[in-house]
Amino acid sequence: MLLLHLSDVDEASWAEKLRAALAPYPVVRQSEPFDPNDIRYIFVWKPKPDAFDGLDRLKAVLSLGAGVDALLKHPKLPNVPVVRFVDEDLSQRMSDYVVAHVTMHQRLYSRFRADQKARRWNQLYPPASSQTAVGIMGMGVLGQDAASRLKPLGFALRSWSRTAKAIEGVEGFVGPDQLDAFLAGTDILVNLLPLTPETTGILNYETFGKLRHGRLEGGPAIVNAARGGHQREADIVRALADGTLGAASLDVFETEPLPAESPLWDIENCYVTPHIAAISSETAGVAYYTRIIAEHEAGQPLINVVDRARGY
Amino acid sequence: MLLLHLSDVDEASWAEKLRAALAPYPVVRQSEPFDPNDIRYIFVWKPKPDAFDGLDRLKAVLSLGAGVDALLKHPKLPNVPVVRFVDEDLSQRMSDYVVAHVTMHQRLYSRFRADQKARRWNQLYPPASSQTAVGIMGMGVLGQDAASRLKPLGFALRSWSRTAKAIEGVEGFVGPDQLDAFLAGTDILVNLLPLTPETTGILNYETFGKLRHGRLEGGPAIVNAARGGHQREADIVRALADGTLGAASLDVFETEPLPAESPLWDIENCYVTPHIAAISSETAGVAYYTRIIAEHEAGQPLINVVDRARGY
Ligand SMILES: NC(=O)c1ccc[n+]([C@@H]2O[C@H](COP(=O)([O-])OP(=O)(O)OC[C@H]3O[C@@H](n4cnc5c(N)ncnc54)[C@H](OP(=O)(O)O)[C@@H]3O)[C@@H](O)[C@H]2O)c1
Ligand SMILES: NC(=O)c1ccc[n+]([C@@H]2O[C@H](COP(=O)([O-])OP(=O)(O)OC[C@H]3O[C@@H](n4cnc5c(N)ncnc54)[C@H](OP(=O)(O)O)[C@@H]3O)[C@@H](O)[C@H]2O)c1
Repeated sequence: MLLLHLSDVDEASWAEKLRAALAPYPVVRQSEPFDPNDIRYIFVWKPKPDAFDGLDRLKAVLSLGAGVDALLKHPKLPNVPVVRFVDEDLSQRMSDYVVAHVTMHQRLYSRFRADQKARRWNQLYPPASSQTAVGIMGMGVLGQDAASRLKPLGFALRSWSRTAKAIEGVEGFVGPDQLDAFLAGTDILVNLLPLTPETTGILNYETFGKLRHGRLEGGPAIVNAARGGHQREADIVRALADGTLGAASLDVFETEPLPAESPLWDIENCYVTPHIAAISSETAGVAYYTRIIAEHEAGQPLINVVDRARGY
Repeated sequence: MLLLHLSDVDEASWAEKLRAALAPYPVVRQSEPFDPNDIRYIFVWKPKPDAFDGLDRLKAVLSLGAGVDALLKHPKLPNVPVVRFVDEDLSQRMSDYVVAHVTMHQRLYSRFRADQKARRWNQLYPPASSQTAVGIMGMGVLGQDAASRLKPLGFALRSWSRTAKAIEGVEGFVGPDQLDAFLAGTDILVNLLPLTPETTGILNYETFGKLRHGRLEGGPAIVNAARGGHQREADIVRALADGTLGAASLDVFETEPLPAESPLWDIENCYVTPHIAAISSETAGVAYYTRIIAEHEAGQPLINVVDRARGY
């Protein structure tokens, strides 16, 4: 018997859609009785400590999230393939967020808003997108989608990744040795890295100081849509105060929800959104995992399997 | 003798660049002595009442602006061709402005900013760009450039113009009869019309009421980057207050500079910029008009000539 176990993704609507899509394979919800030995796949978001207990005959762990940093830290994660969520609709929504915040900073939004509050008519002309360099850290599924949307807008694009990429119209930088050169030519820094030991805290004061200063009025900007663990919030507060950064758009935070006492809420040129850059839609998630299970049961290899040694 | 008269565009830097580019043709500045009968071309921005006096042997009026509404109202405008400024760099900058403000409204910027001020973590997911319809009024040089930048972002696009357009991926609406249908499917309305008697005051309360309500949280949005004469500011204030509009980005105003007592400055979901959406750059302007004069002197017809009967 083949069972899909809905761990913490236990909403009735998911179960209903998955049951309809996977029939005749049975799907059990965590709240329902089941024999752990029957479970072949488990569908997880943020699994509880006992989520994997007794599941000795699992074929794969299916993650509803695109990022698996939290999942990989689960102390009882079974030694089976972990599949992550890769989806066009999710990529599109993430690019929507990235484009909106990159163009906002390019057009000197913070500056014009301050002028508006002061009822000041001050004709300052923002640089054209072709004069503005956007540096994307993490050139995977999401980074590449963002680049493909920013390119027709005319931005000068550069990327930073672990291994080399050859993408037309994007100047590629690779690994720790080329990080400084990458930053030195970047006016707006977009973070789409996975959270791993190597990338934790990478958005820090030293990094901000290495960005290109002088092109964007007020200072360079950062856009973090990956993970809160990438950023040092105390450093962002300091950099926004002393002009090392001109503006910051943050969708993710060291602690989520962002605590009420965080100073970030009150900083004018800090743009806080509540981890909503991109959502995994139920329709897309069900279609994706239905296909993955069907293909795997038909003998094909799993796709988008996480490399545990790399951490993403 | 051929003379280019710099009317109000009298900055030394323009004169210097034009002289270098047009040599051996002489260029005179308004502040310099000249014989009106020698003047063949006049280069104008906002010409003074006497700017054209005595220029009886003009071949053309060259406008530094893309819009010629103010110029056409000049009581002494000579009966010679008026050439307007059409330029890729200007179009790119205008599209930069349009994309930044369209994506800002699509991503529910006003809503998240209000949540931030209230230190509220409220996970609301904006519609994907593919679920958001942008309606462009005026599908000329600037409207088409904006459409070509918005299309790769995934937006559903519609346009409204005087004559039919066949542009792939853009649903076209034509003339007064189809205005209501155009508005009824539009979530974000972008105005790139020229200012003529037909288009004056088109951004009014009745128009706003006909936009699609229900898709964008808070209400539909408008982006006006054309002319202040297109908008009824009292209607915008009312519509933003009662939810007929969710947000407005305005780069142009009925009176410019926007008077200090205007209520628009203080409205949270009204985004005021000081007529800086797109600037005509000196380099581009000099190159453009140097080419126009050279080609015309070589016997070719003038390009981008304004149709006075149409008003643009
Ligand atoms: N805020 C949200 O709503 C949201 C939603 C979805 C995802 N996310 C985040 O976005 C992240 C990226 O997703 P994705 O699907 O694009 O991941 P991906 O396809 O795995 O791409 C990751 C990219 O980062 C690069 N990279 C990894 N470690 C690196 C290092 N130490 N130095 C330099 N580059 C490194 C990789 O380089 P190689 O190409 O050389 O491997 C790759 O280009 C996810 O991990 C998740 O945390 C956030
Ligand atoms: N804020 C700024 O910084 C800034 C900078 C530059 C320009 N502008 C403004 O932008 C305007 C547009 O420039 P452009 O170069 O794109 O002009 P354009 O090439 O002449 O295009 C005008 C468009 O508007 C349409 N149109 C004109 N009258 C109409 C009517 N009564 N009903 C419906 N559609 C009508 C035209 O229709 P057809 O195609 O059928 O003729 C055309 O598609 C300029 O006039 C100027 O006012 C503002």
